[in-house]
Amino acid sequence: MNNKKQDFIPDWLEKEPTQQSFRSIFKWGAKDCFKNPSHGFFNVIKKELGLSDNEFQTPVNLGEKIVGNTQKTTIHPTDIQQFEKIVGKKNLSFDTYSRLKYSTGKSMEDIINLRQERIENICDIVLHPRNKEDITKIVELCHIKKIPLHVYGGGSSVTLGLACPKGGVTLVMNTHMNKVIEFNAINQTITVESGMMGLEYEDLLNHAPGKLNSKNRYTGGHFPQSFEYSSVGGWVVTLGSGQSSSYYGDASDIVLSQEYVTPTGSFKTHDFPATATGPKINDIMKGSEGCFGVLVAVTMKVFQYQPETSKEFTFMFPDFEKVQNAARQISQAEFGMPSILRFSDPEETDIAMKMYGIEGGLLDKFMVLRGMKSGSRCLLMGQTDGEKSFVKNLFKQIKKVCKSNKGVYLTGYPMKKWRKGRFSDPYMRDTLNDFGVLIDTLEASVTWDHLSELYSAVRNYIKKHPHTICMTHASHFYAQGTNLYFIFITKMQDIDEFRIFQRGIIEKIEGNFGSLSHHHGIGRMMAPFMEKHLGEKQMDVLRAIKKHFDPHNIMNPGGLGL
Amino acid sequence: MNNKKQDFIPDWLEKEPTQQSFRSIFKWGAKDCFKNPSHGFFNVIKKELGLSDNEFQTPVNLGEKIVGNTQKTTIHPTDIQQFEKIVGKKNLSFDTYSRLKYSTGKSMEDIINLRQERIENICDIVLHPRNKEDITKIVELCHIKKIPLHVYGGGSSVTLGLACPKGGVTLVMNTHMNKVIEFNAINQTITVESGMMGLEYEDLLNHAPGKLNSKNRYTGGHFPQSFEYSSVGGWVVTLGSGQSSSYYGDASDIVLSQEYVTPTGSFKTHDFPATATGPKINDIMKGSEGCFGVLVAVTMKVFQYQPETSKEFTFMFPDFEKVQNAARQISQAEFGMPSILRFSDPEETDIAMKMYGIEGGLLDKFMVLRGMKSGSRCLLMGQTDGEKSFVKNLFKQIKKVCKSNKGVYLTGYPMKKWRKGRFSDPYMRDTLNDFGVLIDTLEASVTWDHLSELYSAVRNYIKKHPHTICMTHASHFYAQGTNLYFIFITKMQDIDEFRIFQRGIIEKIEGNFGSLSHHHGIGRMMAPFMEKHLGEKQMDVLRAIKKHFDPHNIMNPGGLGL
Repeated sequence: MNNKKQDFIPDWLEKEPTQQSFRSIFKWGAKDCFKNPSHGFFNVIKKELGLSDNEFQTPVNLGEKIVGNTQKTTIHPTDIQQFEKIVGKKNLSFDTYSRLKYSTGKSMEDIINLRQERIENICDIVLHPRNKEDITKIVELCHIKKIPLHVYGGGSSVTLGLACPKGGVTLVMNTHMNKVIEFNAINQTITVESGMMGLEYEDLLNHAPGKLNSKNRYTGGHFPQSFEYSSVGGWVVTLGSGQSSSYYGDASDIVLSQEYVTPTGSFKTHDFPATATGPKINDIMKGSEGCFGVLVAVTMKVFQYQPETSKEFTFMFPDFEKVQNAARQISQAEFGMPSILRFSDPEETDIAMKMYGIEGGLLDKFMVLRGMKSGSRCLLMGQTDGEKSFVKNLFKQIKKVCKSNKGVYLTGYPMKKWRKGRFSDPYMRDTLNDFGVLIDTLEASVTWDHLSELYSAVRNYIKKHPHTICMTHASHFYAQGTNLYFIFITKMQDIDEFRIFQRGIIEKIEGNFGSLSHHHGIGRMMAPFMEKHLGEKQMDVLRAIKKHFDPHNIMNPGGLGL
Repeated sequence: MNNKKQDFIPDWLEKEPTQQSFRSIFKWGAKDCFKNPSHGFFNVIKKELGLSDNEFQTPVNLGEKIVGNTQKTTIHPTDIQQFEKIVGKKNLSFDTYSRLKYSTGKSMEDIINLRQERIENICDIVLHPRNKEDITKIVELCHIKKIPLHVYGGGSSVTLGLACPKGGVTLVMNTHMNKVIEFNAINQTITVESGMMGLEYEDLLNHAPGKLNSKNRYTGGHFPQSFEYSSVGGWVVTLGSGQSSSYYGDASDIVLSQEYVTPTGSFKTHDFPATATGPKINDIMKGSEGCFGVLVAVTMKVFQYQPETSKEFTFMFPDFEKVQNAARQISQAEFGMPSILRFSDPEETDIAMKMYGIEGGLLDKFMVLRGMKSGSRCLLMGQTDGEKSFVKNLFKQIKKVCKSNKGVYLTGYPMKKWRKGRFSDPYMRDTLNDFGVLIDTLEASVTWDHLSELYSAVRNYIKKHPHTICMTHASHFYAQGTNLYFIFITKMQDIDEFRIFQRGIIEKIEGNFGSLSHHHGIGRMMAPFMEKHLGEKQMDVLRAIKKHFDPHNIMNPGGLGL
């Protein structure tokens, strides 16, 4: 687009990480995939962060060092022998690299630590269970020996959900426990082992005729940004939401039943479509983040796969209030919900216009003519899914609501740009991190009546930090409210400075009507805030359930603040 | 319709029950409302039950006796004084009539007992708390003194949910605790005290502009058959479903947050539209049937009230398989869900045709011509709700699916007949009971793949009983399955015979892939089956939560099988 020859382009690092290096652990996604910021976005970052080309000359903290075998395991050799007896030699490791790899997620804090080659909070031994029987034996052994036990699904936690401050065992679920147990076309359900990865899961369903011997094609309807690198079980135990959740529901809505192995016994919940037999154990286990037991299998609802009916849309609104009204009206109108719906605040909108190369172009001129000014205008994008006639009508009604709120239809182009980056944008974080530019996100759910308060409180706090970009959007919709997703970009390298800044944002969320987490779960990051957030009496309920399942406190000890 | 002059019509009892009589307790609904079976239905009953007109000459077991004050309370006078100090003299009673009244629901077993003037499982004292503070003090006192404590909402339990086998206190919630706490139009929520009755709740929402100072009108979307005589809190703690649940959701979906007073403390859950902060306390409390604490207030989702968009439809299908396929296809098609959807088995269909006066008429002839034969044909009825264009399209698509499954459109007439009786049919039960004819119902949820097995097993069991009508329908729909609702009518007066027969049905449900309850809750009736149904490990979870909230086992002791 505007990428003129004379413009400086940093020497972005596009090199596979060295094997066994710190970098090989924190790098997002496929080792040979990279994404560089567009020229527009790069210029925004330089301008907003007050950086010159000079500051993009020399990359820092690349984490290219080999991890080495520097940490001695504290698990007793007899116990190691026992674990080996259960899973076999090749499904067990206790070298530092493996232990670090499977104790680390994808939070900015995880990444800073690895870039600075710090080894903290790692497990003592990594096991790759082959089946439920292996897990039953491991849980039994850990329970008897009081060895902490953690579960690693896809490894995409952004809440320090994989850290093992007390060491112990980490179970890696996606190595072997990734198989289909049963596909049921008449009930529209699939039962899979919890370690099946999102990409494989969706691929199976999309190709059900060939792969599952089914007449029709299906979709799981769950597409978090981590989709390719997260596991089906992980979605359920962290209460994840996909980008199409406004139509398909959150993981919590999509999971029909679960099978667990806990220190005090194993069970599988019923898979009734609904039931009135007291508090539902299926509900009680959702979001348990490995603190109650190990999720070994899930039965998920699946949906008709009909991508040919999908419609994409983009609207520009003159201001933040009008786009909020439009989104709320869509969510409450009862003409059905779009699968994807997102609106951006003015800062994110302006950056998107630059990133997508729209700023200054014909579409931009058209918008300005219609009174949509930079600094105030707000983007709303979305997609409809479902049966053809339903989608057609829904699309028409969404247009009506947007227009009645002064929204201007912008074609599907920005949505197509967004779609292109929806799963690849995380690669860009590594590229920018290489030059000391941090990108992190925090998110919260909120009812409509408190949206503005939450937005202002969090944004003001972030913007008080000098030279910081704060992009905000809402991306999951309910009749009662939505979520706010805050992306902040700043230059920072010191881990303590980062932690103080970031924990401050969490405090602002918690103190201004936001849920501590809408779809990222709690992990170790939000755990210290849980007692205040839920209140002592509600935390007592979680503590009681924890004590029942895990009297020796071995299951992800400290997780959920328990 | 066919009510010819010469036909015998029993002298149906249409008399207000004597005050303070057993009858005044068990009679359904308003004391001056009655409903007699239509001529068609009366003839069906006589024929199927092998009864002659003679057997409808003399009513039996009318329960017209005055209850009298025959049962001495076992609560210690000092405790009575303490309760009086809390709620005031006029909000306390311990005469036998009050105690019997508030310990009795509307199950057939409750009614047989009262008709036979048996006083069993009643509480010792009835309290009408005025506010949360009263309840807090009562719960504290009961906890310290180890006095059993029960909650009475609207009194419509059909599962012996109000019985007090250990005596103690019953709190009546609908006397005072029936007020609006907050209405929030922007979030589309209303917070009410848990004792507000369904009729008043819906009336408030329908007339929100005048009564809640709101711009728009709303609906609660929850219409169980007991709608007029059940409380909003009761819907939540028993996991009820309304007749429009396929669109609006079950009570479990509609409740956003709850406030409880328990023996170990009070709390209000958050009202976020969604949240990923561990297992949700709001979920854990749903369906707790008074075993964990007293529900004092609920925040419910409300919906746009747009009755002018509703469309009713009726289709006749040649057989049970085709109607099932149509309903399943509708539930899985993703063009939106109708609010009401119901299909009947051949026996219920035939009886409906007689009840609605269709049999033998023009519409019947038309159906027979189209191959819809009595004994095989099956009725499907429904209604759409929502925004106008959504409803219009949905209606069109439902028609398409029905036609593709050989369904014939029957106008909206049968649906109108059904609607007329939807809340008044329970009155007919009393009328028939007066001549020893029992009508009872049991219901279960089931996944599509097990529907036929459950249907056959339960129906065969019921039909083995001589001279018994068994009408079955499905009335709540999900992509994964539905519920089956079994209505059985037979002549029986002995309570033990009835119990054996009825518990046998529950066993058949439990043993053939049915949930013990889809929307009636558990009560004392299903409680003994819970351990087998959920399994020991899952019951242990409920027991652990129970123990946490209620270490002295005073909250509805024995409820939920705990």
